[in-house]
Amino acid sequence: MKENGILVVVSGFAGAGKGTLMKKLLSGHDNYALSVSATSRSPRPGEQEGISYFYKTKEEFEGMIERDELLEHACYVGNYYGTPKKFVCDQLKAGKDVVLEIEIQGAMQIKKKFPEALLLFVMPPSAEILRNRLVGRGTETAEVIARRMKRASEESEGIEKYDFIVINDDADKCTDIMHNIIQSAKYMPLRQKEFIDKVRKELKEL
Amino acid sequence: MKENGILVVVSGFAGAGKGTLMKKLLSGHDNYALSVSATSRSPRPGEQEGISYFYKTKEEFEGMIERDELLEHACYVGNYYGTPKKFVCDQLKAGKDVVLEIEIQGAMQIKKKFPEALLLFVMPPSAEILRNRLVGRGTETAEVIARRMKRASEESEGIEKYDFIVINDDADKCTDIMHNIIQSAKYMPLRQKEFIDKVRKELKEL
Repeated sequence: MKENGILVVVSGFAGAGKGTLMKKLLSGHDNYALSVSATSRSPRPGEQEGISYFYKTKEEFEGMIERDELLEHACYVGNYYGTPKKFVCDQLKAGKDVVLEIEIQGAMQIKKKFPEALLLFVMPPSAEILRNRLVGRGTETAEVIARRMKRASEESEGIEKYDFIVINDDADKCTDIMHNIIQSAKYMPLRQKEFIDKVRKELKEL
Repeated sequence: MKENGILVVVSGFAGAGKGTLMKKLLSGHDNYALSVSATSRSPRPGEQEGISYFYKTKEEFEGMIERDELLEHACYVGNYYGTPKKFVCDQLKAGKDVVLEIEIQGAMQIKKKFPEALLLFVMPPSAEILRNRLVGRGTETAEVIARRMKRASEESEGIEKYDFIVINDDADKCTDIMHNIIQSAKYMPLRQKEFIDKVRKELKEL
């Protein structure tokens, strides 16, 4: 019997390297699947239905909210974005560990609806390194970088709400640690309820 | 700089295989140290001071209790048993992960005094296998086995108080999982307070 996978929510400062870590995690192991978000915004050139996003009209999206078909959702600049429950649950039942990148408010919504979700927060080894990475991209103005650093400072207040932090000093080493954390987290009692209940029942009956 | 180790408390049913797992953990990795208990009972033939136990008189032991020098203690059949804080802290400061086998009441005492302690509960894959192991030892009477099974059933009510369960189906595989759990647990926010505070401070100052 294939065991159910777990839902892994990944948050972290802009520039902490979440994207790289998730790519490495998915390419290095076949037990992971990436959650695909739903959105009411229009597809951009090159984006694909069911891969980039599930594209919905505003009315369809609001229908999903009403029918509680989303693990979390938010509205940015007039467009809805959210995590469809069905896709995640189908992958989990197939034994996949589903990885989802999202900011802190969405992570908290998911934890509330789905307490077994594992929350990871990716951190740089230092604030200096974070700033250097943002500067190194060469695409952001000094003003944008300053704003992102300020936002990182605000976001850092919520770190204790996460189950684990992942310190991204070396992407390969960090991906290995992340993989170990996720596989280890399966042995927390809240994710082993069925097994614990089974043994308890057996102990009573023997 | 060497990082501090963590304190790992291991509990589990009699017959679950705690002893074997801990031996394998210690022989397979050099980052672990076994906590040595203090006791007021007399040394038995072959036992060694500082290896089997730290031997204390009843008065000395009561002095340690008064001076809060024990992480936990209990009294069995008129003798004191306990975990000296100093030995554990010295090993942790030297970067060792300190492993300690103890029953649930002691584990809860430790968690209270030392919230960063990691609590592991070793379980057999099934109650049947647990009983077979106890029978297989060939040293216990049917009555003793029945009593241990009853005790396991009672102890099983406390499993959710532990941070992780360890399912001992194959000792080698299980030791690897246990090692991964312990190393992963270092990345929980409560064990990374210093690092989180450092980055927060840097983010505010940058």
